Amino acid sequence: MTQQEPLDLIKRGCDELLLETELKQKLALGRPLRIKAGFDPTAPDLHLGHTVLLNKMRQLQDLGHHALFLIGDFTGMIGDPTGKNTTRPPLSREQVLENAQSYRDQVFKVLDPDKTEIVFNSTWMDQFSAVDLIRLAATHTVARMLERDDFGKRYMSNQPIAIHEFMYPLVQGYDSVALKADMELGGTDQKFNLLMGRELQKHYGQPAQCVLTMPLLVGLDGSNKMSKSLGNYVGITESPQEMFGKLMSVSDELMWRYLELLSFEPMSTITQWRAEVEQGRNPRDIKVLLAQEMVTRFHSRTAAEQALAEFEARFRQGVLPEDMPEVTVASTNGTIGIAQLLKQAGLVDSTSDALRMIAQGAVKLDGARIDDKALQLRAAAMVVAQVGKRKFARVTVG
Amino acid sequence: MTQQEPLDLIKRGCDELLLETELKQKLALGRPLRIKAGFDPTAPDLHLGHTVLLNKMRQLQDLGHHALFLIGDFTGMIGDPTGKNTTRPPLSREQVLENAQSYRDQVFKVLDPDKTEIVFNSTWMDQFSAVDLIRLAATHTVARMLERDDFGKRYMSNQPIAIHEFMYPLVQGYDSVALKADMELGGTDQKFNLLMGRELQKHYGQPAQCVLTMPLLVGLDGSNKMSKSLGNYVGITESPQEMFGKLMSVSDELMWRYLELLSFEPMSTITQWRAEVEQGRNPRDIKVLLAQEMVTRFHSRTAAEQALAEFEARFRQGVLPEDMPEVTVASTNGTIGIAQLLKQAGLVDSTSDALRMIAQGAVKLDGARIDDKALQLRAAAMVVAQVGKRKFARVTVG
Repeated sequence: MTQQEPLDLIKRGCDELLLETELKQKLALGRPLRIKAGFDPTAPDLHLGHTVLLNKMRQLQDLGHHALFLIGDFTGMIGDPTGKNTTRPPLSREQVLENAQSYRDQVFKVLDPDKTEIVFNSTWMDQFSAVDLIRLAATHTVARMLERDDFGKRYMSNQPIAIHEFMYPLVQGYDSVALKADMELGGTDQKFNLLMGRELQKHYGQPAQCVLTMPLLVGLDGSNKMSKSLGNYVGITESPQEMFGKLMSVSDELMWRYLELLSFEPMSTITQWRAEVEQGRNPRDIKVLLAQEMVTRFHSRTAAEQALAEFEARFRQGVLPEDMPEVTVASTNGTIGIAQLLKQAGLVDSTSDALRMIAQGAVKLDGARIDDKALQLRAAAMVVAQVGKRKFARVTVG
Repeated sequence: MTQQEPLDLIKRGCDELLLETELKQKLALGRPLRIKAGFDPTAPDLHLGHTVLLNKMRQLQDLGHHALFLIGDFTGMIGDPTGKNTTRPPLSREQVLENAQSYRDQVFKVLDPDKTEIVFNSTWMDQFSAVDLIRLAATHTVARMLERDDFGKRYMSNQPIAIHEFMYPLVQGYDSVALKADMELGGTDQKFNLLMGRELQKHYGQPAQCVLTMPLLVGLDGSNKMSKSLGNYVGITESPQEMFGKLMSVSDELMWRYLELLSFEPMSTITQWRAEVEQGRNPRDIKVLLAQEMVTRFHSRTAAEQALAEFEARFRQGVLPEDMPEVTVASTNGTIGIAQLLKQAGLVDSTSDALRMIAQGAVKLDGARIDDKALQLRAAAMVVAQVGKRKFARVTVG
């Protein structure tokens, strides 16, 4: 590889790299660079949005560099000292260690454990005295801190900013000093804090870290950032079927962004696929490749193949007729048995007929074969029921 | 004494008392109140302006209360952590103790040593961890801090405020918590910091201290505050003669303010004097009483009487003629002997005549009798020379 190629991989999908000339110099040193990324100490439940940053760390590891996975437990163990945010109680050391184990379980699906060091900023911050913190606070001005977008907005709109909140970016910046980081990765929204690391390293006589920001991943809806609370996410511990199905649901356009940020396929391959789609190849084929790569990463190759097979069985082989009858069936005490449902929907002549068809494997709900003769559906459920190859009905449980 | 009388003494000369109702409740407790006042840890060289606060502490001591003389050495030992103010290097513990001894030597001229406790805020602040300081910082908002007059002005005029500067009022306020102060005294310009003590005590579940602010003493010029750099001060270690002379130079109007803030004479007496002056008594008589009280306080009764005698000898008994001749005499190698000076000025016929007049005690320079026949005056000196009762000359040494 020439020097340009690693740089291309490092910059892939990134929002901003500060400063490229400095990074070239650091890469020319020929030693593994120390790559820092900070994570919240609260219980992690990661989705694909979080893995954008992890993927970048992995790419850097594959280039030979050393990842410093920093858990910011110092501030987490303080909690919310104003006492106003009761949803943020202080974490105990046990909880921190438990959460760290949960991080390990999740992030080592992406990161190379041999090139990852999990570190806690309490290691050095617990040694900090009030005097140390005052000296740290003296390195920056109030005006500089109010330049941070969120602080500035809150100040201008008279929303309170407690003074200790000014300390946290400084602590985060000091972590880079303590770790002698060569580079720090973070979300676009973290840029101010990442630059704080650069400034503090200079103040403490260290070479300044490079800063690489990654964009926020857009969620499945194609418009908002991926988040648990918006429901537009793919959790990395979701089942192969869910993960596969959700990824197949993204738009043909968003798929390319997902490939750039989530796939480890070379950009040259992705560019090639894009050209093929422009020349008429079905984008669904490419989406399948993306979905399979993700399921393979977070589960296994076998799980990915099985998820594909099931997906195809359900949505490809079982092509639904367009003029399906719509039927409402009556539940009793809020539920209805599968045999009764099929009978009321007019798909079988009797419940015993229904049970026989189930035994033959001829009954499907929403494309999935039903084996359980005692299956109950709840009121308000809406399913596509199928008996044999040709009998369909869109059933609402009333 | 009724309850009203101590309260009158406490309020004498004060700028503001917060809150009077709370102070009445505290006084009604019947125990000695803990009276805090904070002082800079740098080398003290006190003038009468500084004693306004000390006098108030002394008045409180005389009412039975306990003075906490707080030396703010914690921040002093940090120095200026921005490194910009080279005139404020960090103090060593030895320097702090040396300065504390110097304070003792000076302030016990005013304070009652038996009711004074000298305390250092490093005692508790050195135990403070970064976490403790963050919790302290969380008690207040950035907006609240920018309400402080000097911070607000600096922020609005784009002058940098280092973040640690926001910590110092909090530390000063926390001192009241650590000391369980019932009341804090300070200059008018300290009001914000004194109120911080009230707020932090409430936050830490203590009764809030009362706050009493004293005005800044106007200097001898009658317009600016008394300060070393303006030269309009009376240092408490100045000689009895200097102190006496300087106090005799204040205006007849300023004298009443000085009496209120510096004298321990009851206000009823001062009011009586004022009435007498309005009815024709010479204000100089009252000024003499003020000057004598100050010299007695910082030196002795004897020194005060001697200073008065000398002052009267010089400025009362020796009334100067209005039509004095002005003479320039010639120095040799930058000096001139007293006998030669008197001869050249035409006050004696010869140097031997001069030496005889000196031996008779008949020679005065600026109203002070000269005994030293070998006295040399430097070039550029300007003196009123007098021989006997009637011969005067205003002499410049050329």
